[in-house]
Parts: sequence; C-alpha cells; structure tokens
Amino acid sequence: MLSLLDVVSGLDVSTFTEEIYPKRQPVILRGVDIGQCVDKWRSVNYLTTQGGQMPVKIHVSATPQMDFIKKNFSYKSLPFSDFVQRASEDEHTEFFETKTENYYLRALGDDPRKDKADIHQQFPRLADDIKFPKFFPPEKLFSSVFRIASKGTQLWTHYDVMDNLLMQVVGRKRVILFSPAEVDKMYLNGDKSEVLDIDNPDPGKFPKFLKAHRHEGILEPGDILFIPALWFHNVIYKDYGVAVNVFWKHLDDSLYDHRDVYGNKDHVPYSRAQQILDRALKTLEELPEEYREFYGHRLISRIEKKVLQKDKPP
Amino acid sequence: MLSLLDVVSGLDVSTFTEEIYPKRQPVILRGVDIGQCVDKWRSVNYLTTQGGQMPVKIHVSATPQMDFIKKNFSYKSLPFSDFVQRASEDEHTEFFETKTENYYLRALGDDPRKDKADIHQQFPRLADDIKFPKFFPPEKLFSSVFRIASKGTQLWTHYDVMDNLLMQVVGRKRVILFSPAEVDKMYLNGDKSEVLDIDNPDPGKFPKFLKAHRHEGILEPGDILFIPALWFHNVIYKDYGVAVNVFWKHLDDSLYDHRDVYGNKDHVPYSRAQQILDRALKTLEELPEEYREFYGHRLISRIEKKVLQKDKPP
Repeated sequence: MLSLLDVVSGLDVSTFTEEIYPKRQPVILRGVDIGQCVDKWRSVNYLTTQGGQMPVKIHVSATPQMDFIKKNFSYKSLPFSDFVQRASEDEHTEFFETKTENYYLRALGDDPRKDKADIHQQFPRLADDIKFPKFFPPEKLFSSVFRIASKGTQLWTHYDVMDNLLMQVVGRKRVILFSPAEVDKMYLNGDKSEVLDIDNPDPGKFPKFLKAHRHEGILEPGDILFIPALWFHNVIYKDYGVAVNVFWKHLDDSLYDHRDVYGNKDHVPYSRAQQILDRALKTLEELPEEYREFYGHRLISRIEKKVLQKDKPP
Repeated sequence: MLSLLDVVSGLDVSTFTEEIYPKRQPVILRGVDIGQCVDKWRSVNYLTTQGGQMPVKIHVSATPQMDFIKKNFSYKSLPFSDFVQRASEDEHTEFFETKTENYYLRALGDDPRKDKADIHQQFPRLADDIKFPKFFPPEKLFSSVFRIASKGTQLWTHYDVMDNLLMQVVGRKRVILFSPAEVDKMYLNGDKSEVLDIDNPDPGKFPKFLKAHRHEGILEPGDILFIPALWFHNVIYKDYGVAVNVFWKHLDDSLYDHRDVYGNKDHVPYSRAQQILDRALKTLEELPEEYREFYGHRLISRIEKKVLQKDKPP
C-alpha cells in the first residue's frame, strides 16, 4: 500500500505546532522561508568557496545504493570544497574507485565521538544562509546536519529517535517513509532495515516488507520534510543534492542517551528494557530447547498483552 | 489439520524409553499390563466398597463442558462412594443443581495445599489393583491422580509441566492434543486455553485456533496415553470414566516449582523470566504510548531472534 505524503503550503508556526506536530505523521511543508540558501547554494562555486577546505569524512561507493549493514562503501576524507565538487559531477577525473563513484556527506561534530553536528560551528560562513523554522523551542534543538550527495545516491532505510526537519536546499529527493507501526515488516538490524532495494525487494527473503504501507513524496528545493521520531525513512537523491536537517528532542531530556551524537541511539528506557530482557532470556537457558521455545512464545504473548494491548476488549 | 494419534501395541519398557520417549510426541500405548483394575473397577459396586466413604472434592456442573476460566461449575464435597455412584449414572435422584448434572473428580493430596495426589495414600484398597508401567525411574514419580467423571464431561484444554501417563481404566475417552509449538494459537490464560468449544470455536474470537494442528484419538479401557510436558490436551468422557494418571519429572528437580502440587506451575526459569520481563516492561512506561508500542515490538523481535531462532540462516 502506498500513500502520497501530504504537501502543506504557506503554513505558519502555530499551524505546525498545534495542528500538524501532534499528529505525529510525516508531512512535506512547502513555501516555508528557509533563507537565502535555496538561491545561493545552487552555485557549486559559492558552496566550495564559503564551505572552505576543512576535511570532511564521507561515504564513497561504487554503486548508488549504499548499504550500511554490508558496508558496500568506504569512508574517505576530502576537503569540503573538493567533496562538493565531486558530488556535483557525474563523472570524476579524480576518484577513489571508479569515475562514476557516489559520494555522501553526513556532517559530523568537531570531535565526532563527542560532539553533535552543528552547521554554525562547522560551516560558519554558510550557516547564516539557512533559517531553521521556529517549530520547536530553541532549547530542544539537538543538532543540525549538512547532507550532501551525488545524484542517484540512496541511503539505507532507518529510524532516528528524535524529531527531524529535513530542509531540502538543492536538487530533488525522493523520500519513502514507513510508520513505526510497520516495524515488524522492516527486517531491522539495530535501527537499520536489511531491505536495501526497497523498490524491488527479494520476496523470498523479505515477504513482510512487501506488505508494509509506504508514504512517498518528492522534495523540491525549499521543501521541508517533517519526519517524526521512529518513522523509518529511505532517501534517494534524484539530483546532486544539498540538504540540512535539524533534530530536536520531543521528549524529556532524561529519556535520550547522553552519549548519542547522531540522534539514533535508542531511548534510555528501551536500552534498559533490552538489557533486562536479556537477563530474562538468560534464565530460560537452563531449560532444554523445546521448553525454551515454548516459554519464549509465552514471553512474547505477555508483551503483546501488556504493551501492545492485544487480546483486550475493544 | 488433524492427525490421528499413533497407537502402539505390545510394547516393552526399553522400546518406550529408547524409541518413543525421546521423540516427545504423544502416543497411545495399547496392551500394556496396568493390572487388575481394568476388570475389577468396571464394577461400580467394587469401586464404592473399596474406595470407601472418604469425602472427595469434586467439580459439579449443569453443562458437560467445564470451563475453568469462567468457572461454570461449583466445587462440592461428597463421600467417594456416593460420588462414584452419581458419576456412573445418567440421571440423579440426589443432586446439587439438576438431575443431569456432571461430576468430575481430580483427586487431591491429603492436605491439598501441600500434598500431591497419591493413589496409594488416599485409596489404599484400590491402589494395588493398578500397576504403573516402569517407563521412568521411580524417584522421578511426582503424583498419581484418580480421575473419574460422568459421561459427556469435557475438561478445558491446558498443559502440564510434567510428563504424563494417562491410564484409562473404565470407559472410553476422546483426547485431543496440540503441540507446544501451537501455543500462539491456543488463546492461553495461564496454562488454560480460553477456547472452550474446541469442535466449534468462535471463528471471530479465536481465528488462530482454527489453524492449530490437532492430534486426536480414542482411549479404550486399558490404554495408556503418553502426554509429554507442555502438550495441550482436552479430554471428553465418551462414557462414565475412571482413569489414573502419573506425572513425573523429565527435567532436573530444581527446575520445578516446589510449591506445585498439581504439576501445572510453570518451570522455575520461566517464572523468573516472566518477573524479569515485567521489570523490563515497567521501564517502557516512562515513554509515551507510541514509543512504548514501537519498543514492545522490538523486544518481541529480540526474543524471536534469540530464542525462537527466527531470521537465522537455515
């Protein structure tokens, strides 16, 4: 099943916060002022000049479909200006693997182990070109992330634990989202789906994925995609593309992992629940396999009854 | 799907222990010597005389289908001899509710809160008539239970945590079993299925039950049904019936709940796992419902991967 993402035009802050945000559904917001970046950044020359020579860590892949699980790409470092140059061209004179290789930047913090990406910090001469809509209190802001990639690049389907405004600045992007309710059809490995080719998934390996309800849309330059926390998303760069996204905290600070710099570490209560569950499963190891499996099913049914409200009167 | 239970005739102890027991599948054993009970107990007069006047606690129900969950029966007390008399007749001159009411005895220990049923202890003048086959080491014996009921009585589907030999002495009994692998189709409430009318289940309420693979058979007097631990079973008395079953411990003593007198309290590792799981679920309560449900699914998928060997290469 497929739904097209709603496109909402000419919306103000109160409409977003009062009518759209509480629904926890993805929406494309069109016509919101995100600043001069939409004009200025169209120029590769402007971007490379203002962005500077700072080395950036990038994903480089011989095929456009990047696979985080099987790691079909390598991490390389290039000066920002060289990287943008290469990402914007279809064929490269200088390259790592092949002259048609794809590039992808997901900007990092100054110390990528400790710092969150912050476009004002890492790209001060570009940051003023972009305005973040005031759709959330400023103290809830978590990070602002530059995302630039070659035409055709496709990122693996995954979820983040924070709310997200993806501001499309240059180029068009096809976005495909799945509700958190579809989690059982996603074939997750951590926060990432094992289904790489979402338009042509292997029906033998991923039968449930074929039944997942998808929400699709095309982002045009200047569009903002609201991605609520936990919504799975897959992104395909229809053109060489530049985008910035902001993550912010929807919930209380204490519910997020404080070592998380990417916005994708599971909420603290779940990480704890997972550890506790592992201890529960450990006790089952005292039993022979047939008993263990039986009681595994009983534990699942307990979660279904207690958390998923299954088998409850409507 | 329906399979008929295998009927194995003329089998010796080593065939049972070496060939049948390790398969953990229910089987009807025919022609094993269970003693003179098969002849002697056919006489209601003999049973009442030898069984004596000791009061027994019985289930009395106006309908033959007894429902442990909704408790459509009451517990009454009668002298054993009166009870057998009433259970053996189709209409009663003395009765609690109606003259066609059904009776069911599941014998208890001397102190039903602490003692297991032991036919040698509670019915010494009858116990010598029955021989327990030497299919397990005597120190593994847990209990021996007299089961007597009116024609037509049907007991709720449930599982026990111990291995079980059900020795049919008088009358015929229809038995319907389901493998522990069918647990998700059983609509359990504790160890009992909520599906009462197994031959005509409500398809709206119990859709998965209709898909459960059943194993059926008819026990004739003298037959023994081997019910491995965790196998669900439902029993219908086609005639007024007398049976004795023995429960024994398949696993190490420490894995059984020492307060269990019925043989139906879950194994210790599972009881512990359940308590630990509840703590894990408690931590999820810190999150809003949509997050809780999402992570509930992720916990389930963790159990599937770790315990049920799902998503593993074949």
